[in-house]
Amino acid sequence: MTSVNYQSLVEKLSEVSYLNGVMSTLGWDQEVVMPIGASEARAQQISALAGVIHERMTDPRLGDCLAALEAEDSAYFDTLQICNIREARRKYDLETKIPKKLVKEMAGLSSQGHTVWVAARRDNKFSDFAPLLKRFIELKKEWAQCAFPGMDHYDANIDNFERGTTMADITPVFERLKAELIPLIQSIQDTHYQPDNSFLQGTFPVDKQEALARKISKDIGFQFDCGRMDVSVHPFCGGSHPTDVRITTRYQENDFIESLYAVIHETGHGLYEQGRMLEGRDLPVSESLTMGIHESQSLFWERMIAQSELFCRHYFDTIKATFPDNLQDATADAFYRAINTCKADFIRVEADELTYPLHIILRYEIEKGLFDDSIAVDDLPEVWNDLMMKYLGIKPPTDTLGVLQDSHWSSGAFGYFPSYTLGAIYACQFYQTMTNELSDVEKNIEKGSFAPIKAWLNEKIHRQGSLFTPHDLVCRVTGESLNPEYFIEYLKKKYSAIYPLGLE
Amino acid sequence: MTSVNYQSLVEKLSEVSYLNGVMSTLGWDQEVVMPIGASEARAQQISALAGVIHERMTDPRLGDCLAALEAEDSAYFDTLQICNIREARRKYDLETKIPKKLVKEMAGLSSQGHTVWVAARRDNKFSDFAPLLKRFIELKKEWAQCAFPGMDHYDANIDNFERGTTMADITPVFERLKAELIPLIQSIQDTHYQPDNSFLQGTFPVDKQEALARKISKDIGFQFDCGRMDVSVHPFCGGSHPTDVRITTRYQENDFIESLYAVIHETGHGLYEQGRMLEGRDLPVSESLTMGIHESQSLFWERMIAQSELFCRHYFDTIKATFPDNLQDATADAFYRAINTCKADFIRVEADELTYPLHIILRYEIEKGLFDDSIAVDDLPEVWNDLMMKYLGIKPPTDTLGVLQDSHWSSGAFGYFPSYTLGAIYACQFYQTMTNELSDVEKNIEKGSFAPIKAWLNEKIHRQGSLFTPHDLVCRVTGESLNPEYFIEYLKKKYSAIYPLGLE
Repeated sequence: MTSVNYQSLVEKLSEVSYLNGVMSTLGWDQEVVMPIGASEARAQQISALAGVIHERMTDPRLGDCLAALEAEDSAYFDTLQICNIREARRKYDLETKIPKKLVKEMAGLSSQGHTVWVAARRDNKFSDFAPLLKRFIELKKEWAQCAFPGMDHYDANIDNFERGTTMADITPVFERLKAELIPLIQSIQDTHYQPDNSFLQGTFPVDKQEALARKISKDIGFQFDCGRMDVSVHPFCGGSHPTDVRITTRYQENDFIESLYAVIHETGHGLYEQGRMLEGRDLPVSESLTMGIHESQSLFWERMIAQSELFCRHYFDTIKATFPDNLQDATADAFYRAINTCKADFIRVEADELTYPLHIILRYEIEKGLFDDSIAVDDLPEVWNDLMMKYLGIKPPTDTLGVLQDSHWSSGAFGYFPSYTLGAIYACQFYQTMTNELSDVEKNIEKGSFAPIKAWLNEKIHRQGSLFTPHDLVCRVTGESLNPEYFIEYLKKKYSAIYPLGLE
Repeated sequence: MTSVNYQSLVEKLSEVSYLNGVMSTLGWDQEVVMPIGASEARAQQISALAGVIHERMTDPRLGDCLAALEAEDSAYFDTLQICNIREARRKYDLETKIPKKLVKEMAGLSSQGHTVWVAARRDNKFSDFAPLLKRFIELKKEWAQCAFPGMDHYDANIDNFERGTTMADITPVFERLKAELIPLIQSIQDTHYQPDNSFLQGTFPVDKQEALARKISKDIGFQFDCGRMDVSVHPFCGGSHPTDVRITTRYQENDFIESLYAVIHETGHGLYEQGRMLEGRDLPVSESLTMGIHESQSLFWERMIAQSELFCRHYFDTIKATFPDNLQDATADAFYRAINTCKADFIRVEADELTYPLHIILRYEIEKGLFDDSIAVDDLPEVWNDLMMKYLGIKPPTDTLGVLQDSHWSSGAFGYFPSYTLGAIYACQFYQTMTNELSDVEKNIEKGSFAPIKAWLNEKIHRQGSLFTPHDLVCRVTGESLNPEYFIEYLKKKYSAIYPLGLE
């Protein structure tokens, strides 16, 4: 028999889940279809709805309900129920422990921050952004104090995005990456060789790009009866429910690789959402875990699958048939090499899988330094450029192309960056386990048969929802905790075959 | 100085307005873009949001605030403020005066009603629908008793859609229409003549239909930076705010008139919403008035403007250039005649402007009889068919094509039908006044210069919001109350010129 208190919790949490679904629909609408003139009205609508959700999430009756449940004998609850109670407690505490004054100042600074950051980036003037950044770090330290008392302030900020993961976990992993990837990239640069990618230049009609991307997304397993694919300025995966998952991409006439791989990346996120457990779909237990685990799913499909030789071999004829004028003289092997080039660049979002981790490590080290006061905000441009030189051998000519490139800090999102690279490492570790557990993975990729792969991810990761921490999930799935060696091995092997490094 | 209570009212009403805007976005999303698999989740989201809105609208603090305002000296309030207080009171009373048990039973019956009606219509089996209809009439009588105590029950249901308008207003107007239109339609049928419309048959590519409709909507004055045009199963005008107005249409390859005139119709609704007063946009005072006044705006553009000879003359070359193969041998005059044919048909939504009022009058008389118990539900199919014979000279071969054709009753929307024809009469009356007040209306239509017409409607109707009742608004704009003679005169003159009636 379900406890009366638990029934009441389910009602409260479901209502919040429905209202959050509504909020997601508003967000999608704003990015994809909303007329430009509606932005002011939409901000008011979002603010009103956010107010309602906040009211529900901080309702003392929810607090009372949780306290009553925690006083009950936990032996009467099953695993899913225990998870829902635990997750509701975490969220309730995070919402109620922060003083209103602090919440308000953070919200104000975040909305002001975006405007200030846009202008500073445009004007290449870090000093215009610095005061706001300083204040945000102070506030985020205060926030950490309230949200996770006794925890290191930066660890608390990481915990907000990557539950249960601390600097003690991350630093040694990132040190291993540095030790291996910096010399690997250096030796690639020393070859002065780049695979031919001239056939990826030219004109690629947008309607053909769209049809190709839609086909591959569907082949991989995206269910279009429970989702959509549209266009937005920045690709994202949104939607209001596992039955309403909406991915986006953007098209440029002169580059079909960008739109296609953005779709595959977002499809990875989308499969996670569509693959959530059927029970408790409107409760925390079924929700996707962390930013890092989500990113592991998008990168799994984008890199482990779609940037592989086998995948290129399977789809090359289709791609060639889509753009016959451009690709008539290319081969599957040339295509594989052309989409796997390594080149140090200033901009994180344009980085390849080899250089990307160093962009992240640089930001992680800076955030760490900002929180332990070993780096001063005013020194950031210099620190940034020095690290870029040290890690990638290039120096940004402007702060616009350097310390001002990302929006994250303008909204106070410290501790978010590590998730990207944790995701890449998880993806590789999951892939390794999958090939051990499933037979014919490579054969299946080569013949475009992705259903067994998707089913494995569904079972091992998507349907696990929020039952475990990322650490516990990775241990359960792969038999060991986060281990960067698979990722390092994968990169070394792959790029040694593409570039003449003389390592083989 | 604004009263503290009034300030509090504004905050409460604005929040409801924002949340209603969110609800409209959900509705648009559901009809236009939502993946089919999401319907269950969407129902839950809508229900959760409706619960929040209901909670706000029935909040005793809103009641206290209104009572306090009503106790203040009204001399301190301006016209807009008085209107907001009055409208808030009306809505608050309508929400709070109905017993919860009744609200719940009506909601349940409405959702069940749609399913039952769809099946009964499909199976041509009125007896399956009859019990539900009987119960709904009982409930709507109860509802009238609570919502408008002392008012006739059917008048109360009409008031819900067409404020301040009663059977005492409508019946004589509809009698005049019957007296004139039934013989007019009869004499048209007696001619056995129909204008040639063969050039409207054929294939009309959807992309060209869409471009044409978009151009004309824009020419008329729809602002696409504050609106959108999309596709849905049934055309509608939705959106979340005057800066976010969304019209839809539907396309059939073999008929461009349907999509084009649906767009013009919905553009008329859209111009009303986009033209709302700038002050108090998130308050009741700025809201569109009634169903009938809204319909007057859509029909103004669809019929008075776009079905006119002048409009056809202006756009014929454009239309011909859009579909050159089909229209090469047609003329502007032939086009005008072809889109203004009169033909008695079983289905209301496919009726022309001459026969449409009789479809409405039939429903009005039936609803009246159902509420005063002079008509029994079980007799409806027979009553329906007899009236069809009497008014239009045709007898539906099935109830599917007769009494079961409309969805309105299945959701308890009694008293809604008259609005359609009131709107047509208002539209004609407004047009008459406009041609008296503005010079060169006809010349402007003929040269496609719609800005002065739109500006007149903006000033006279759209910006008046909810300041007046429909009756007062019509008197202020036209100098007299609802007068069907303009409409009758317009129809007689127009159709005597199209059909050889020997009246001229």
